[in-house]
Amino acid sequence: MAPKYAPNLRSRLAPLLLFLQTGFIVIYALYVEFDPYAFMFGNTSSKLYSEFQDVNVMVVAGFGFLGTFLVRYGFSGSGFNLLVAVIATQWSIILNGYESWIQSRRILIDLKSLVFAEICTASALISIGTVIGKTNPVQLILIAILEVSGFILNGWLLRTFFEVKPLYCAMQLHTFGAFFGLMLTWVMRRKGSETPFEKEKMDRKTGLFSMFGTLFLWMFWASLNSILVDEGEKKLRIILSTYLALAVSAVAAAAVSVFTSPRGRINLDHIQKCSLSGGVAIGVSMSLVHRPWVAMTIGLAAGVISTLSLRYLKRHMLLAFGCHDTCGVLSVHGLPGLLGWLAHLILQINHMDDRTTAIRFAVFHIFTLLITLSLSMSMGVITGLLVKWSFWRPPQDRKCFDDQAFWEFPKLAKKK
Amino acid sequence: MAPKYAPNLRSRLAPLLLFLQTGFIVIYALYVEFDPYAFMFGNTSSKLYSEFQDVNVMVVAGFGFLGTFLVRYGFSGSGFNLLVAVIATQWSIILNGYESWIQSRRILIDLKSLVFAEICTASALISIGTVIGKTNPVQLILIAILEVSGFILNGWLLRTFFEVKPLYCAMQLHTFGAFFGLMLTWVMRRKGSETPFEKEKMDRKTGLFSMFGTLFLWMFWASLNSILVDEGEKKLRIILSTYLALAVSAVAAAAVSVFTSPRGRINLDHIQKCSLSGGVAIGVSMSLVHRPWVAMTIGLAAGVISTLSLRYLKRHMLLAFGCHDTCGVLSVHGLPGLLGWLAHLILQINHMDDRTTAIRFAVFHIFTLLITLSLSMSMGVITGLLVKWSFWRPPQDRKCFDDQAFWEFPKLAKKK
Amino acid sequence: MAPKYAPNLRSRLAPLLLFLQTGFIVIYALYVEFDPYAFMFGNTSSKLYSEFQDVNVMVVAGFGFLGTFLVRYGFSGSGFNLLVAVIATQWSIILNGYESWIQSRRILIDLKSLVFAEICTASALISIGTVIGKTNPVQLILIAILEVSGFILNGWLLRTFFEVKPLYCAMQLHTFGAFFGLMLTWVMRRKGSETPFEKEKMDRKTGLFSMFGTLFLWMFWASLNSILVDEGEKKLRIILSTYLALAVSAVAAAAVSVFTSPRGRINLDHIQKCSLSGGVAIGVSMSLVHRPWVAMTIGLAAGVISTLSLRYLKRHMLLAFGCHDTCGVLSVHGLPGLLGWLAHLILQINHMDDRTTAIRFAVFHIFTLLITLSLSMSMGVITGLLVKWSFWRPPQDRKCFDDQAFWEFPKLAKKK
Repeated sequence: MAPKYAPNLRSRLAPLLLFLQTGFIVIYALYVEFDPYAFMFGNTSSKLYSEFQDVNVMVVAGFGFLGTFLVRYGFSGSGFNLLVAVIATQWSIILNGYESWIQSRRILIDLKSLVFAEICTASALISIGTVIGKTNPVQLILIAILEVSGFILNGWLLRTFFEVKPLYCAMQLHTFGAFFGLMLTWVMRRKGSETPFEKEKMDRKTGLFSMFGTLFLWMFWASLNSILVDEGEKKLRIILSTYLALAVSAVAAAAVSVFTSPRGRINLDHIQKCSLSGGVAIGVSMSLVHRPWVAMTIGLAAGVISTLSLRYLKRHMLLAFGCHDTCGVLSVHGLPGLLGWLAHLILQINHMDDRTTAIRFAVFHIFTLLITLSLSMSMGVITGLLVKWSFWRPPQDRKCFDDQAFWEFPKLAKKK
Repeated sequence: MAPKYAPNLRSRLAPLLLFLQTGFIVIYALYVEFDPYAFMFGNTSSKLYSEFQDVNVMVVAGFGFLGTFLVRYGFSGSGFNLLVAVIATQWSIILNGYESWIQSRRILIDLKSLVFAEICTASALISIGTVIGKTNPVQLILIAILEVSGFILNGWLLRTFFEVKPLYCAMQLHTFGAFFGLMLTWVMRRKGSETPFEKEKMDRKTGLFSMFGTLFLWMFWASLNSILVDEGEKKLRIILSTYLALAVSAVAAAAVSVFTSPRGRINLDHIQKCSLSGGVAIGVSMSLVHRPWVAMTIGLAAGVISTLSLRYLKRHMLLAFGCHDTCGVLSVHGLPGLLGWLAHLILQINHMDDRTTAIRFAVFHIFTLLITLSLSMSMGVITGLLVKWSFWRPPQDRKCFDDQAFWEFPKLAKKK
Repeated sequence: MAPKYAPNLRSRLAPLLLFLQTGFIVIYALYVEFDPYAFMFGNTSSKLYSEFQDVNVMVVAGFGFLGTFLVRYGFSGSGFNLLVAVIATQWSIILNGYESWIQSRRILIDLKSLVFAEICTASALISIGTVIGKTNPVQLILIAILEVSGFILNGWLLRTFFEVKPLYCAMQLHTFGAFFGLMLTWVMRRKGSETPFEKEKMDRKTGLFSMFGTLFLWMFWASLNSILVDEGEKKLRIILSTYLALAVSAVAAAAVSVFTSPRGRINLDHIQKCSLSGGVAIGVSMSLVHRPWVAMTIGLAAGVISTLSLRYLKRHMLLAFGCHDTCGVLSVHGLPGLLGWLAHLILQINHMDDRTTAIRFAVFHIFTLLITLSLSMSMGVITGLLVKWSFWRPPQDRKCFDDQAFWEFPKLAKKK
């Protein structure tokens, strides 16, 4: 018989946090310094700050509250998100400084380092979206550490061997995060997981908390897409394209949601998640979007695909593969990421006069996708195998999607 | 007997969204382009971005959550707000580019276009505040499209025939939106609407969600008022004036609310809505406010008028005219807008030495108000007549203020 | 027998608000003007605006929602916060302009004045954290007025007699606010206050509202710490140091919380409050933090001390001294503030070669702390004695932590 109480995490979580945090402090003490020249030579760090804050709001509040839709999992959704985010960011700063460390045995950090690190963190938070509710914080932290490492390795491979631009590598966060997460949740599947979890549902109020997360992601997505681009015409194009793509995907999500509902009702889940799909798809293809209608068409396609897949594919994935995807990451980040990749390919080929260059580009482009997919999926499998280990004391089925397993509720208890 | 279920919107909402969205994409494909020179000549687009985001937060999250105070209408309040906002913004960009289209058959867009469009959208969202809860999303979208068209036409009339400055035209959003909405809700009144709707009430938690919307509107109002003003002493004056006026109107709202309550209790509704009235009144008069105390006095007057009218006039409007104003738009935007107009008149005349010019100005100023009022009210009536049509399948009285009419609640249903 | 209803505040709150607000308007009319030169000479006011908004969000939404964790006190937590903030800010602008008034009989205000005033306001809001739930808005306003006056006096003393830099004076807001609040709540203690208040508890939803406040404070803390520093290498250092210190204190809070819980559960209260302690400690010491690991170590120490004291000391303070500290201000602002002071001392002495200068500095540094502590504590006692007066009609014990004592609930009442 399963034990009545959720496993005690005292001997797992406290040492892990302590170990990681002291480890980080030691590494920072040995190698990491503030960049003393970051503000010279007309540096744009100061302009960067308000955009950094937008991305910071997305990572901390946006993803945090997006995960509060579960009726009994709000503390975990927002609290673990903060915990995972700060650990993944500290770790990403170290990994992103690896090349500089090779050369000079030190890592100089400025605001850009923090921005890069938060983008890597976002990719880990996307992965985690597939497994929240079914994992404990120890597992989440391990997943984040490994995901971030894989994502940075992927960027390094693409840059080094395929001369892909850093911006495009960073924008693989959606594709990498989604497919990493899908394999992860597939490996971690439980017996009988086709039957829905008892506590996996939202209510009127948690739906609104989640809406809050959605809206902050939606509003600041233009900052996420444009922050790595220097001031100029391109940046403006990206900001406007992102806004338009998101606007259209919100309309598409509502239209498809109501159209596929026999009683003509909209699904809040579709609005909350698929309204963001335009931002994903445009993020991957934005460098080549030179007309507003192109951005809007990409947004439309993303919204339609995303909503259809959330309506029909999500359930199929669960029943056919036992792949339980809590936040619908495949629909929101995976498929729109692939769509963006396709749009990028078509737009690039369209721009080229010479057929040979076009084919050459297409082959390269296909390879970058294959590498991202295979690395993310294999890392996801490995992570899943490691994290599934009972040593980490995962919650029992009955304790899934329940804050009570992880949080003290002394004052709540009195209430009723 | 009325049907048990709310009308099915599948055959209304999906085609409407599809039609509008493909229409927009076609128009954008034919005429709209990114402005390639937007970043040259020391352009301030980059500085504009963080202020644009403030306004964006007001439109998407501020108005969105302001509408969540109704206990069973939170999904609609925030979800429909997003839907309406993105459609109105896309449409406003087209209409605002009309003059440029006449000249060159193309519309160049930059960040300023988006800012202008969001201000137009805000005026539509103000109008909608009078009817939320009693309409379906199809009706809301039609209202927004027509309101935005009317508001842009109003600005064009004022600029072309009265040489009114664009900033002042834009700041008519409150007056135009409010009186449009009032006529709209008056035309759309239902039989027996003097008796309160069963579900039109707030609870402890929805009151807090709504507070969140209020605070984000309150905090970023200075951005809304100053965003169209170029860098300089005037912008600073507007920022400080707006802050001070809002601060004083918050104090005034609390004071009047507690004073007019026999048991000495404050009304949350008053704090949430009337604290914003100072921003409205100062928005209309700010160009001529050169001393902090003037801004504070305008804020004080706005707060007092707004709270008194919400306490006493709102109910009277309902009983005497059958004019049911869900969000108290008359009190929050209508009357403070008129107050701002009056303050503008007094301040302008005060500045003038010559009596003839003063009278000339006063006549002009009265005409601008008359045009705004008559256009907004007549458009409101027309819109109301169109939207009232049963073809759009408005919700029955019993389904008013209820998310259940529009949203799928599969997981919620299981809960209890 | 205690009366059944909470005291009627009509004859207290309305006159007080009216008196203060008209008083402010008169003072502003006589002496306060917009600074006409604020935008000349390459002034950074425009850059300042987005950081001002971050601080504004902290003060209005951050502190406001942090106070909504109490299950029946959300309207008061967020509503009174706004009211107190706008009054304290208006008053701070006047007091901060005192020196300029002495010289020229007028006070010129620009964006910096508003920023300074909001920092003073923040210090009052910290103090209020000790007594929320047990006071009425009249008392809160009086406390804020006196606290802000004391805090500004403290800064003036430190600057004038000890040549302390303005930035360091401003960063005393945590220490001053916390110890002022502690003495205040000690003086205002009630009989039998060792037994917990019936309604002093959170629930799932109010915990999330409070999390929202926490996250907005956490995210924008870097703006609070860096806003008074001009563009340059130092500002960048402060931004990064603050982020790192906050990140580490979040990890430390989780680790200590789970470690000190026999069942291995995390306490949401610890995460929400102690995650912020790193920002406090680094705020006081940041001028001398030149390496990332130093910031992280300060954050670690702050997180550990803060969580331990919230777990064990808070209860002891209540039982031993009858000092009931609603928001755990001692743990979040008081002790981390002292830690920051200590870190500052150690770092400064470490930088000095000459022993005599070091001792001289240490003595000075100890004096600045003693002055801040004695002024804050004596002002806290005086304020407590004044505010405790039954003339202000404080709520009865049974009405503590209850919105019903202060807010109209007409529509709510119908609900059940």
